[in-house]
Amino acid sequence: MNGFNEWRVTPSNTAKNTYNPIRAIVDGMKLTPNPEKAMIPLSIGDPTTFGNLPPPQIAVDSIIEGVQSKIFNGYAPSAGYKESREAVAQYLTKNGSRTKAEDVFLVSGCSSAIEHAISVLLDPGDNILIPRPGFSLYRTLCISQGMQVKSYNCLPERMWEVDLSHLESLIDERTKAIVVVNPSNPCGSNFTADHVRDIIEVAKKNKLPIIADEIYAGMTFKPLEFTSCCSQSEDVPILTCGGISKIFLVPGWRLGWVVMHDRKNIFGEEFRRGLMSLTQRTLGACTIVQSILPKLLENADNEYMDKAVGLIQSNAEIAFSRMSNMRGLKPVTPQAAFYMMVGISLRNFPKFKNEVEFTEAMVSEQSVFCLPASCFDYPGFFRIVLTVPEEKLKEACDRMEEFCNANYVP
Amino acid sequence: MNGFNEWRVTPSNTAKNTYNPIRAIVDGMKLTPNPEKAMIPLSIGDPTTFGNLPPPQIAVDSIIEGVQSKIFNGYAPSAGYKESREAVAQYLTKNGSRTKAEDVFLVSGCSSAIEHAISVLLDPGDNILIPRPGFSLYRTLCISQGMQVKSYNCLPERMWEVDLSHLESLIDERTKAIVVVNPSNPCGSNFTADHVRDIIEVAKKNKLPIIADEIYAGMTFKPLEFTSCCSQSEDVPILTCGGISKIFLVPGWRLGWVVMHDRKNIFGEEFRRGLMSLTQRTLGACTIVQSILPKLLENADNEYMDKAVGLIQSNAEIAFSRMSNMRGLKPVTPQAAFYMMVGISLRNFPKFKNEVEFTEAMVSEQSVFCLPASCFDYPGFFRIVLTVPEEKLKEACDRMEEFCNANYVP
Repeated sequence: MNGFNEWRVTPSNTAKNTYNPIRAIVDGMKLTPNPEKAMIPLSIGDPTTFGNLPPPQIAVDSIIEGVQSKIFNGYAPSAGYKESREAVAQYLTKNGSRTKAEDVFLVSGCSSAIEHAISVLLDPGDNILIPRPGFSLYRTLCISQGMQVKSYNCLPERMWEVDLSHLESLIDERTKAIVVVNPSNPCGSNFTADHVRDIIEVAKKNKLPIIADEIYAGMTFKPLEFTSCCSQSEDVPILTCGGISKIFLVPGWRLGWVVMHDRKNIFGEEFRRGLMSLTQRTLGACTIVQSILPKLLENADNEYMDKAVGLIQSNAEIAFSRMSNMRGLKPVTPQAAFYMMVGISLRNFPKFKNEVEFTEAMVSEQSVFCLPASCFDYPGFFRIVLTVPEEKLKEACDRMEEFCNANYVP
Repeated sequence: MNGFNEWRVTPSNTAKNTYNPIRAIVDGMKLTPNPEKAMIPLSIGDPTTFGNLPPPQIAVDSIIEGVQSKIFNGYAPSAGYKESREAVAQYLTKNGSRTKAEDVFLVSGCSSAIEHAISVLLDPGDNILIPRPGFSLYRTLCISQGMQVKSYNCLPERMWEVDLSHLESLIDERTKAIVVVNPSNPCGSNFTADHVRDIIEVAKKNKLPIIADEIYAGMTFKPLEFTSCCSQSEDVPILTCGGISKIFLVPGWRLGWVVMHDRKNIFGEEFRRGLMSLTQRTLGACTIVQSILPKLLENADNEYMDKAVGLIQSNAEIAFSRMSNMRGLKPVTPQAAFYMMVGISLRNFPKFKNEVEFTEAMVSEQSVFCLPASCFDYPGFFRIVLTVPEEKLKEACDRMEEFCNANYVP
């Protein structure tokens, strides 16, 4: 008996404190398009929105084959089918990250991979270091569970490289990991091998593992090359988070992985058991999607990939070149993924108090929606998505130019 | 700087405390089959193991259609596609649980539904009441997050009905919900409408919401009928957990739901927002699987379902009848789902200290593996799975009889 006479059912603190800044900011915006112009959303980080970037045909065919075989309907092992983990290991190894199948844990999308990485490393009161600007999920997951995040600066004038001394200055006794997001959402940046090594050096000096969010691996623009954290680490233990969502353009399929890179056995067996236990909580990715991994990943270096990334790179070049010449805007060269960050010289747009008002007005005047980068903890910028069809992107650029010309004050 | 000179990376308490009793018990067993007899596993709660229970053809066809359409590759809303939530609402309504689409939250399997229900209701230090015998996931999820579980007794002599006074005696000020699992894994029980109302009465008197785990809804043996908790509740708020895993025999596809039944607005809007926020953490079920729900659920009362449940019911009758006549065994009549619990008169099997040694010996002598019910917090019993092909089940019964005859001491 609890002696309660009245109903008083309230949500838990975890639920109350689960806060999505993108939703909070966007839901609070006045987004009323100009009725005379069709809306062009440059805000949505979903590459499937416009239909111009279909998944590879082998992904579709393999799903059909998998479901018709009727052998992938039951429970898979909690960390995934052995053959599917092996396929991921081979794929990562081929791309420079030496990986064994037993180190691969398949989960329900990269968000779930990130949740697993946080859950296995942090207790309430612990903290991780995250990039600013950065994807908000790390903050959302940590804060709701009584963990902290500390944001280290990435520098637009250095192609979003990490401010290493700022990074190191944030480390304290409760710091459990450094999160490295490369290539970056929202920045579209791609770190050099030298810079990756510099970050690893900070981790090594302070005996901190790295959470390497590499969901955009494989989407680096030519002639640049992607460098994974684990390829540069001799001893720093690394949890790499990735998946098929972005590179194969199927984010809805929810197939991600968290990979233990632990050559010097610093995570160790208890840690591995802990991670395995976490995968048993709610089980992982859809078995039909798991079943396609051997075929999909084996064929992953085919022309499909070049074509998709080439289309995005071409858009990136158009958008950068156009916006570089718009009054009051300062885009940062995109190098990978499908985003570009654009700085706003707000003192030249006195009508607008901040980037939220600026992007609201771009909707009401020109029906072009760019995401204010306060969504990524980075006021004074907006983010555009580069997966829109070229003609729409060019039309958006024309309108943005008109908008800047109309509102710019020298 | 943290001043650490040595690596000391340890798993979090959550990871260390995530404990799966089934794995722990089974991994500790000496399972050496008799080399002269082929193994018959009656232990695996996966209905797809033997290939005799395929999913409905419309599920397979709809997956193919969904993936070929190429319109279900992007992110779905975090609680699921509107049409898919609507399909679940109509399906539940048709089966007696009046439900609106906005109350349905699609998640990655029923395990994830249970995790959402716990996460939205409990803070560390809170507790829920769970059935004994019972499925271990509730305990696993709660203990690892600093929450408690208290087990209320279900009574084999009353077809596993809840001991209501024991249930009520466990309620304290930190109790946040009563978990009702009906039909039950591991019991195979199916509560009468009267009994469901009696449980709801206890909840109502103590102003406690119910977590209704109804993943086996639709799998009740004729002429019995399933009664959902929400169909009997006037004001007690209920979170119903369910999914397509069992009824459509596709547990690997990971499509579950948590449904808010809150006719008197006792959960309220803040609670609904909390649940919605939780779905945004890692997003939900695979979009291709979500896409099949309208077709699959609309056709859910077809002959396929009767056939599948009929096959299981027939096996249940065979197993119950055979084991009722085995010396030293006392099965409890199965009424639903695909399990039967069997009591062991251990004083008549003095060679074995407990149900673990009993089931180990059944493997070494007869190559038949039944799960010791200590896995479900219920020593002295074992659980068998009723989805094996009839011939295998009969063969298993023959061997179990031989085993009992060989080891029984009057």
